[in-house]
Amino acid sequence: MNFPKYIKIVEVGLRDGLQNEDIIISTKDKLCLVELLIKSGVSNIELTSFVNPKIIPQLSDAELLLEEVPWDKDIAYSALVPNIKGFERAQQTKLREITVFVSASESHNKANVNCSIDESLKKIEEICLIAKNKKIKLRGEIAVSFGCPFEGTISSKNLLDMVRRLYGMGCNEIALGDTIGVANPKQVYDIFNLIGEKIPGLIMAAHLHDTNRRALANVLAAMFAGVEIFDSAIGGLGGCPFAPGATGNISTENLVLMLNKMGISTGIEIKQLINCVGLVEKLLKKRIDLIPELQKLKNN
Amino acid sequence: MNFPKYIKIVEVGLRDGLQNEDIIISTKDKLCLVELLIKSGVSNIELTSFVNPKIIPQLSDAELLLEEVPWDKDIAYSALVPNIKGFERAQQTKLREITVFVSASESHNKANVNCSIDESLKKIEEICLIAKNKKIKLRGEIAVSFGCPFEGTISSKNLLDMVRRLYGMGCNEIALGDTIGVANPKQVYDIFNLIGEKIPGLIMAAHLHDTNRRALANVLAAMFAGVEIFDSAIGGLGGCPFAPGATGNISTENLVLMLNKMGISTGIEIKQLINCVGLVEKLLKKRIDLIPELQKLKNN
Repeated sequence: MNFPKYIKIVEVGLRDGLQNEDIIISTKDKLCLVELLIKSGVSNIELTSFVNPKIIPQLSDAELLLEEVPWDKDIAYSALVPNIKGFERAQQTKLREITVFVSASESHNKANVNCSIDESLKKIEEICLIAKNKKIKLRGEIAVSFGCPFEGTISSKNLLDMVRRLYGMGCNEIALGDTIGVANPKQVYDIFNLIGEKIPGLIMAAHLHDTNRRALANVLAAMFAGVEIFDSAIGGLGGCPFAPGATGNISTENLVLMLNKMGISTGIEIKQLINCVGLVEKLLKKRIDLIPELQKLKNN
Repeated sequence: MNFPKYIKIVEVGLRDGLQNEDIIISTKDKLCLVELLIKSGVSNIELTSFVNPKIIPQLSDAELLLEEVPWDKDIAYSALVPNIKGFERAQQTKLREITVFVSASESHNKANVNCSIDESLKKIEEICLIAKNKKIKLRGEIAVSFGCPFEGTISSKNLLDMVRRLYGMGCNEIALGDTIGVANPKQVYDIFNLIGEKIPGLIMAAHLHDTNRRALANVLAAMFAGVEIFDSAIGGLGGCPFAPGATGNISTENLVLMLNKMGISTGIEIKQLINCVGLVEKLLKKRIDLIPELQKLKNN
């Protein structure tokens, strides 16, 4: 059994994490967190979403944040683009990578972006066409890929078709999201294995939530199926405002610690990462429990 | 990737769980729990330990408990035997399976049973000789196999030698214990894979703790290396009184749920198991948090 030597971690706490928090974090404080994350070795950050500021006020500073973050050739920022309007906003910034998204179920897509999957894919196609011309990197994300809070099971065939369509539009990297944390390792292995076989050129990523404490087991299963990119959120923040029961992304600190222990490099320094958790606690005025191994590292 | 069709679960909550609890549970209440576990489909129960009652008063009713539990050909009970004296006590009961144990590190063995590993193995050999003659089934358990709270890393070579010695004494089944929950999936895979290759006749088992939330990932890794027997404790009870920082066994309910979802049979009915957690809460007067999926099942 061969484990990968390197895993790319995409920090999504500033977007998927903060969008679920009631306390509005100032751009200045977000910048402090970004800087501390970069100091820890985090080099891929999903920073924000160009969503309607009235719907998610927490992310209303998207443009300002993108203007102020430290731009460096070694740091890759991305942001979610929910529609054409959001894409127009994104184009006014320095952003070179955007994430388009759709849900694997009709009901979740409707709740999330108020249209059908097919309508979403048509809008995404428009965005992709322009993005490709402008050499903006495209990432696709499919929410509720492993189970929907409204519809339950997702058919692998439909999911594979959706991946194929997004890939055809120019999304060379696609993340399957376990938005409500219901995936199991066999399911994760099977679907990534199928997609890897059918679409060998695709770069696969996994966006896992730890709602039911299987996220690390699912990471392992995804790695066995060839996934080498994982989304995670500092402090295990997160959820989805339009998916009942969705809590916590897999926490970056637990993921990095496990990979470290397995001898898999991430470029991230675990002790610095614990400082980031401390900052998040301070900003959100809430306690984030560390696992005993990390607590011990913090105390030393 | 092939997953096993069936996983044998050994419920250790009554021993490894209760031995860490301050509230002394009456034999009558333990019997209620045993009966409820059996009703859930649990068929392998590590019931108690023939340890000095002064050291662990919680388990002082070993003989009485073994007398009173429902004996049925489909239910296998076992108990820990720490020394010759304990073995003499065990022989006075109906028990047909005993577990002998040693630690993978000298310091933990000293803290646990106050002698060196070699002295432990000599005592175990004596016990095994008599047990084999009396056709009592032998299980070996090696504590702190994946890391010791005093010594840190455990050498694979020493661990393999220890397994080989126990196997040679007649322990056809051997469980490696992650007593303080520090194992990582690569380590788990590598050591079981090595043992499986070197001692093909051995029945391997894993006794994992969820201290650092990697237990389910470690289960997956162990399964990939051929392990089909897992210890777990209802409600995630447990720890080790002589291992600082050791908390919670992998919880039976989370393990069974994950395996169910993966299509792997355990013979255990998850809704009934939730009732067992409820009983444990009542007996120990403490709250046990269920993961959201189990909480939902409980509410329905």
